[in-house]
Order: sequence, then C-alpha cells, then structure tokens
Amino acid sequence: MKKSLKQIMGSGLSISLLAVSVAGAASAADTTTTTTTTTTTPTTPTTTAQSKNLIVLIGDGMGPAEVTAARYYSKKFLNKDRLELDGGYYVGKATTYSQAGPYTSESGAVTDSAAAGTAFSTGNKTYNNAISVSNGEVAKPFGSVVEAAIKQGKATGLVTTDSIVGATPAVWASHVRQRGNQNAIASQYLNSGVNVFFGGGKTNFITKDEKGKRTDKNIIPDFEAKGYKTAYDKAGLDALPATAGNALGLFALNEIPYVLDRDDKTPSLPQLTQKALDILSQNKNGFVLVVEQGRIDHAGHANDLPANIQETLELDATFKTMVDFAKKDGNTSVVVTADHETGGLSLARDNVYELNVDLFNKEKHSYEYLDAILKTAQTADDVRKIVADNMGFTDLSDEEIALILKGDGSSYGRGGGYNAVVSKRLGVGWTGHGHTGVDVGVWAYGPIASLVKGDIDNTDVAKSGAKVIGADLTAATKELQDKYLYPLFKVTRDNKTLFTARSLAESLDIKVTWDEKTKTVVLSKDSQQLSVLVETGAITENGTASTFVGNVDNGKLYLPLEAFNKLTGKSFTWDSASERILKN
Amino acid sequence: MKKSLKQIMGSGLSISLLAVSVAGAASAADTTTTTTTTTTTPTTPTTTAQSKNLIVLIGDGMGPAEVTAARYYSKKFLNKDRLELDGGYYVGKATTYSQAGPYTSESGAVTDSAAAGTAFSTGNKTYNNAISVSNGEVAKPFGSVVEAAIKQGKATGLVTTDSIVGATPAVWASHVRQRGNQNAIASQYLNSGVNVFFGGGKTNFITKDEKGKRTDKNIIPDFEAKGYKTAYDKAGLDALPATAGNALGLFALNEIPYVLDRDDKTPSLPQLTQKALDILSQNKNGFVLVVEQGRIDHAGHANDLPANIQETLELDATFKTMVDFAKKDGNTSVVVTADHETGGLSLARDNVYELNVDLFNKEKHSYEYLDAILKTAQTADDVRKIVADNMGFTDLSDEEIALILKGDGSSYGRGGGYNAVVSKRLGVGWTGHGHTGVDVGVWAYGPIASLVKGDIDNTDVAKSGAKVIGADLTAATKELQDKYLYPLFKVTRDNKTLFTARSLAESLDIKVTWDEKTKTVVLSKDSQQLSVLVETGAITENGTASTFVGNVDNGKLYLPLEAFNKLTGKSFTWDSASERILKN
Repeated sequence: MKKSLKQIMGSGLSISLLAVSVAGAASAADTTTTTTTTTTTPTTPTTTAQSKNLIVLIGDGMGPAEVTAARYYSKKFLNKDRLELDGGYYVGKATTYSQAGPYTSESGAVTDSAAAGTAFSTGNKTYNNAISVSNGEVAKPFGSVVEAAIKQGKATGLVTTDSIVGATPAVWASHVRQRGNQNAIASQYLNSGVNVFFGGGKTNFITKDEKGKRTDKNIIPDFEAKGYKTAYDKAGLDALPATAGNALGLFALNEIPYVLDRDDKTPSLPQLTQKALDILSQNKNGFVLVVEQGRIDHAGHANDLPANIQETLELDATFKTMVDFAKKDGNTSVVVTADHETGGLSLARDNVYELNVDLFNKEKHSYEYLDAILKTAQTADDVRKIVADNMGFTDLSDEEIALILKGDGSSYGRGGGYNAVVSKRLGVGWTGHGHTGVDVGVWAYGPIASLVKGDIDNTDVAKSGAKVIGADLTAATKELQDKYLYPLFKVTRDNKTLFTARSLAESLDIKVTWDEKTKTVVLSKDSQQLSVLVETGAITENGTASTFVGNVDNGKLYLPLEAFNKLTGKSFTWDSASERILKN
Repeated sequence: MKKSLKQIMGSGLSISLLAVSVAGAASAADTTTTTTTTTTTPTTPTTTAQSKNLIVLIGDGMGPAEVTAARYYSKKFLNKDRLELDGGYYVGKATTYSQAGPYTSESGAVTDSAAAGTAFSTGNKTYNNAISVSNGEVAKPFGSVVEAAIKQGKATGLVTTDSIVGATPAVWASHVRQRGNQNAIASQYLNSGVNVFFGGGKTNFITKDEKGKRTDKNIIPDFEAKGYKTAYDKAGLDALPATAGNALGLFALNEIPYVLDRDDKTPSLPQLTQKALDILSQNKNGFVLVVEQGRIDHAGHANDLPANIQETLELDATFKTMVDFAKKDGNTSVVVTADHETGGLSLARDNVYELNVDLFNKEKHSYEYLDAILKTAQTADDVRKIVADNMGFTDLSDEEIALILKGDGSSYGRGGGYNAVVSKRLGVGWTGHGHTGVDVGVWAYGPIASLVKGDIDNTDVAKSGAKVIGADLTAATKELQDKYLYPLFKVTRDNKTLFTARSLAESLDIKVTWDEKTKTVVLSKDSQQLSVLVETGAITENGTASTFVGNVDNGKLYLPLEAFNKLTGKSFTWDSASERILKN
C-alpha cells in the first residue's frame, strides 16, 4: 500500500521541472504590487555588536588567479607593487560549493552566483538558481543580513555594476525560486525597505513599450511614490543629495558597461559607492551597504583578461573608498569576497613559463564593444584593422584571423574568437566559459576581520556580518517564513496553478493516506477531509463532490491552492509574479 | 671610447648562455670532495626567538585549486568535510614571482621551483634555475634558514618524495647556478652539516656503473664516514634509531613513486617525517626540518588529477604528523606553503557547472605506472582493457582511444593522452604542462603564524622562519659569500675555464679601462696591471708578456682565473663540480 502511495505522491523532482519552467515563463511578466510591509521599528542592537556599520564587497567571479593578474598589471603599469586589497586585509579563503537542486542535474560542486549569494547573504546553502530560498519541493525564504539590519532600523543599500536585479544584489532583499524571474525581484525591492539601489537593470523596471521587459507597468513611479529619488547617469548621481534617504539609480538597461567601454555619463563603482555611503551614513542607527563588482564575472565568462583586470582594479579602488570611509568613521566593518571563480583562468599556459604582462594594458575596448564591430568585418584585412586598432597586434596570422571570423565555438561568436587570440598572446589560459570550484579569497577591515579569518565557508560571511552588527538573522528569517512559502507548481493549459500535493500537504501538517481499494488519496487535517480519485482527479470534500479538480501528471498528484485552504482553514493566496504563496 | 669598451666588455648575456651550457655538461660529472667545513659551534639564540624548532612543509605545485580538489575528495570519500590544513591553520597567501635571468628569455612572472625555493629558504628573489645564488653575471650565494640554524647548533633535516637533490630541498643546503647540476648538489650536502636527508635521488650519489649518474665515485661511503646512517627502504627507515644523529635515506633512484604506485617497501611521507622528527628532536638546541611533497607538482605537470589529489592528501597527513608533534612539544612553529601552481588546474571546464567527484577515487595507478603498460597496447581493445582495469571506464569512445594511442601532443605520450581523457570525464581542466603564476596559500601553527599572515611574498617565509627561531640569515650569507663566487664562465676546446672579464673584474674591485689607440683592455689593481690585446688575446703582465691567454668570443673578453689572482694577489681556485670560485 505504501508503495502505491509513493508511486502517486512520490517526491520525484524530474516531473516538476517541466511544470515550473512552464509556470516561470507564464508568470514572469506578471506583477503583484501589494506584497509586504517592511518593519522599520528599530530594535536594540545586541550587546555583542562590534560595528555600527557593515560594508560587504563582492567580486563576482574573482578567483585567486584574477586577483594575481590584476596585481601583475598594477605592478607593471600603475607603479604599485601591491593592490589596495593586499595592504594587510587578506584574512582567509572560503569554500563556495552549493547543493544539488530541482532544476538541473548539477551536484552543487560548482556554484552559481545565486546559491553563493544566498550563502553569504543569509548563511544558508541552497541550490544553483535559488534567490534566498531553501532547497526542496516547498522552499522557505531565508532572511538576509540586509533584512535583519532593516529590522534594527539601519539604513541599507545595494550597489552593482551588473543589473540591480542580478543574483548577487537580489539575494539580500528578495526571494524567488529562480533567479531569472527578475521582474519579480524588482517588484519585491519596492517593499523591501532597502534605501539605496544603484546599478544597471532598468529593463526590469519599465515596460516592453519602453524597451523594457515588463508587461504590467513601469514601476519606477511606485518607487518615487515611496520617496525614492531617481538617477540615470553620472550627473543624476551627482545631483542626489546625501539627505536623499531613498534613492534608485538605474544607469543602464542591463549591465553597466565595462570600465574599458564607459563614457563620461556613466558613473564608476567607486563613485556609486561613495554616494551610497554619503546617503546611508546619515542614519544614526548605522547602515549595511552591499556592493558588487559584477563584471569581473562577465569578462571571465567571455575570457577577456584585459577587461577582467580593469574590473578587478575597479573593485580594488572601490575597496579603498570603503576603507577610507571606515578608517575615518571608526565604527565600520568591511568584508570582501567572491562568489566563485569564472572561466578557469590560469596565469601561463602551454608549458611556457611566462606571462606577457606588457600586453595587459593594450586593449582599448572589451570584446563586448568590439563584437559589434567584428560582425561587420568582411575580409581578413577588416579583421586585421579592427584588432590592430583595439589591441595593437599588427601581425595576425591566417590562423588567428580564421579563429576570429569563425568564433571560438561558444556563444561569444567573433568576440569569443578575438578573446581566444588575445589570451594566447598574453600567455593566459582558460578552461571554459563557466564557473569553477576553487576556494575564493576573503579580505576584511575592522572587527569582522577576526570573525572571517582562516578557512571559512561562504555561509560564515553572513553569520559573521550579522554578528558584528548584532543583527538577528533568525528573526528576519522567521518573519519571512511566517509570510511566504515557495512550492513547486505547474500551470495548466486552462491557466490554473496547481501544487504538488504531497510535499505541500506535508509542509502544512496535512495528513496524507492512500486507500488501495478505492484508489483514492485522502488528505485530512482536524475535521476536514478531501478524497481524490486518482484516475479522474475528482475530489470529494468531506463526503460531498467538490468543485476543485485535482490533476495527476506522470504519476504525481497536483491540487489547487483552494484545496489546501479548505483543509487548513487558512486563506492563502498565490502571488504569481513572485511565484510564492502568501500566508497572510 | 666608452662605447668601444662596452662593445668588448659588455654585459650581453646571450653569449654566456652557450658557454655555460657547455661548461655544465663538461663538469657536472666531476666532483670536488674538499669544500667547506661547517661551523657547528652553537651561537646563542637572539632574545626574539619565539620557537625552538621550525618545521617547513612545501607542497610543490600545490596551488589553490589543488587544495580545493583534495578537499572535495576528502568530503566524498574520507567522510571529512575539511582537510587537516583547514583546521584553523590557513593564515594567508604568497606571491611567487621570480626574476628575469641569464639562461632563458623568461621575465620571472612565472617561477620555477628553484627560484621560489631560494625565496622561501633564503629570503631573496633570484632567477629561474638558481639554487640559492643571486642573479647576475657574478652570482653570490645566499644563506638559508637551515644554514643559519646550523650555526645556532640546531639539528636540521631535509625530507622529500622527490629526488633529495631536486630544487626544493637543494635550496636549503647547496648553492649552484643551475639546478640541473645535481651531482654537485649531492656533493655539497656532504659538508653542509645537515643531519637528515630522506628522499629519492640515489642516482646522484652512485656511479654510472651502478646505474647512477656520477663519473667520479660513489659518495655514500663519504657520508657514512661522516657518521650518516643509511636506509634504502621502509625496513631500513624503521631500523634507524632516534639517536642516529645523522641519517641518509635514499628510497628511490629518482623520485619516490606516487602514492598510488607504491609498494610496502616504500615509506610514506608521514613516516619519513616522523622518523626525521624522532632524530632531530634529540638535539637540545632545537631543529629545523624541511619537508617537501614533491610529486603534487609532477602529477600537475602530467595533468593527472587523481594522482595529484593523493599526493596532496599525503601532504595533508604529513601536516597532521607535524602539528601533532608541535602541539605535544609546545616549542615548535610549523609553516606550510607552495612554490607555485602546476598545470593551470581548474575545477570545472567547458561551461559545465559540475565536477564528477564520484570518479576522483577510481584510479588504481598513476599515468606514470600506466604509461609503460599503455605503450604495449596494439589495438583499441588493448587500450579499452587497460583503461577499464585502471580507471573503470568501460565505454571509451573511438575519439578517446585515438587520443590515448596518439598521446596529447606533449612529452607525456600515451600517459598524457590518458590523463586528457580522464580529466575531461572528471570535469577538470588544465591549461598546459607547466607552472602558473597564481598566488599560493600559507598555513601555519605556532608563533610563526602571526608573522606570515595576510598577503605576503614567498621571501617572507624565510625571513619569518629565521626570525621565529632567532637565526641569523645575514651571518649565514656572509659566511658563504666570504668563501664562494659564482661567475658566468666558459670552457674552451682545450678544456680551459675562462671567465667574463668585465663582470668578474668589477666584482673583485679591479679597475677596467680601454685604450683605443692600442686596442687593449687594461685591468689594474694596486700595483698590478694586465693589458689584453683584444685582437689576439695576448696579455702583457706589468709590461712583460704573460703566459696567460685571453679569449674574445663574440665581442666579449674572457680571462683565466690566474689572471685575476695575479691582479688581486689572491689564490682563488675553481671548483668545477659546483661551478664556483673558492675564495679561500
């Protein structure tokens, strides 16, 4: 009997995968505007707080070799033997692994930015793709250090050169099962209580008519109604007063351009960081600022070392901005780490004990900028001229030209071919366009330094960050879990949202049994009972035929939310934008 | 005039390269037995000494990814989430770069083991190839922490799984311009005062008749005459008493086999280390023990990850042996680092976010053992069987078989092809068979930990090691420099050894001038003068024709040692085995 029940109600995740993918596509464009009200009543910091302010700096994709490469550049071209990071701040390294999850066959040996971000923002491991929710058929949200700091009455800010709804900023102030649901992340930011958002990603705030990605509406006015001052370029950033309180700066539709490709209208990461510090430091309860250099990762994915180095150096300059503030302020902890390495960079290749550091500063524009120009190339001479103009190579071989015209076999096309040619001449190797599993560095200034030293795990960054400012991650998590559930689900052809019955029932303390004789699944809680005839999905509600209909898909039973509400006496609702159940 | 002089006497190093290569080949087989007498009178440790004993552990080729890979294995197959190294010992990372030198076009951006070893044993940067001598036409020896400790009356030992005359042990107790001169390194060990030598490399102690590499004689009896007890296998090691005082253990002709390939007769690195500790700790003045796991590097060069992991785990077990001793002893500092990364290892490849950790323990023997077997393969089925037996892959594709049969294009032949196939299936990448420039980790236990924390340079390991035991590196260096000079030289067809005149003269405070009218180079010191007619090399000695003959080669003047002795009034002699001038 038990076996039969398992066959029907089993926790096999393969089926759910398709269901969720369909649902994701259907509802990503849809947005709920009424979600949560943020608690802003200051709580008293615990007596163990050692810093009033916390700054977290993330180098996305900044593995050990990326840091060493930037130092070689610094030594050769900036007359600085050491990076700012090297000035006594290195304290340890962190393991980065994530967990096997429901959406891919990955074991978690190699993390993505979402799982790594969830780890260092909330202190919990999860699966690749998850934005601060747990692993499982019915996921639960995890509270972040930013959310816990908001409960302390601290000011908070998220700053990045990537899209502001990218995984690394998202994990601190939003909760979705799949990182790709970026419209929902933008919507969740509105009610997050975070004071400063600076980055790219305007596309997830504006409508398709406005060259954005939203089908509901432009949500920037909603931010403005909440008191957010807006900025869209360097001048707008400069115009934001330190007393702005709340600020939304969207400096690109998607990512902010690479350092190599920026014009004067685009603010730099140190400038964004300085402005955020100006605003957040007005709060007498202190602040938490999270800053991501998001494009080290992108240049790593593309295998463009010269661009990668410039982004890493921008992180290094940003760190100086932070430490200068912290030293002056005297009550601030700063911690720096990475989520993972990207590209499998090695400094030397092909059995040659050399790096051509002389060429590290020759690139005028990144592959990203160059790719559009390379696409126009018709002849070998066109390629020769483009590469000579951008990189100074005047002696491209026929083989190199062929590689550029054909591309490197990846989605990077001719830009990828160009990067392969440049990397070989620079003497650096890459083993692919994805992430790798090497431990990443940890740097720190202030009281947090002694908490994150040695061999740590990325979850220790969150735990130590919370500890150093006396923030309560457990309370922040409880508040979220009292409000939300993130179950696997599917959307039927007639647009009904159904949930995997067994896992959601179990999470709601509903008893599930199997009647072999009548081939029915019986769900019961207190005096309420639903029987589902698995062959038809027909439901009997306390003995009477119900209007609800179940659905058996590939041996797995799905039920609508109303069925669960009936059993529990609750009135849970479905937030299709954020793909979560609102419990109250 | 100055220009002409430079043309003749210029410091162009390209010419010297060939000369030295020839000389190296000619004299490597020759050995001097009377070299130095080691000072063994104990000096009083300075008051700043914080540890009586120092243990240095080197993971040759153990970059960041190698450590992470071993941890993945440990977690999966040893039920240990963390390595021994991870247990609170990680304190920082070190830069590894070396210097551009006379023998290659390398800039020093990527170090070899000799230059890195010179850095962490003596505190000085040098060129790739150098064994604890300085960079320049007339190199000077650098004293190591081991040599400085001997002057304190401490016991010292060198232990490795590589050849005992390999670069990493050699830098602590020998001084040669070129690491390949391993017979000289073995000879220098005899008078080094080091008490314990355990490793491979017997070939450099025995004659060609005995399957060794020496043309002079078997030098093991010389060690025995100095009181060294000998051992050649595990039983011999076990039989060495703790009171042995001096011990020479040569457990392989060349390298000690990989962990995967060892039989019961071969001692492990923890066993060698424990025995060395037993012997050295008898000295009431304390000891310095240097241990190298030398074959992480070899497995990295070959790109054999399963073998690489086993060697790294052996280092980890050796570290436990050391820390167990240090904790019990209470007066010992332990420091661990690497010289460089080898192979450009990345943990994931080809844009797949995965490592197939399940396969990390499947390899029965290393590529080295397997290569001989693979060489016997005639057919695809032969390859299938060999690989199935060794690695458990029963589904090799035609492409994989072709790669194994053809080899990977490197000198590793079929073993290299096999490693390429295995690496791809494991999901790990390599970017070549050489070293790479990424920073390496630093781990420590005891008082040295606070001296080597943060972002350090590999030279800081030597400086901190000396400081923590109160050893005087400057005095050790001075003693050596009072005895030896290491000039560039060439050996003529009639077997005369000649030296580059300008650089050696300058190092001996001999004045060098050029007489344009007579086309002669004039060397003078005090009342002595030599004039060399550059066209013929004829020498006039204080106005009289000399028996010495100079030699102009490619515009560069060479002179015999007698000429310099005449000018300085010294009686320097040439040690052709060690390729150095004995000053007294």
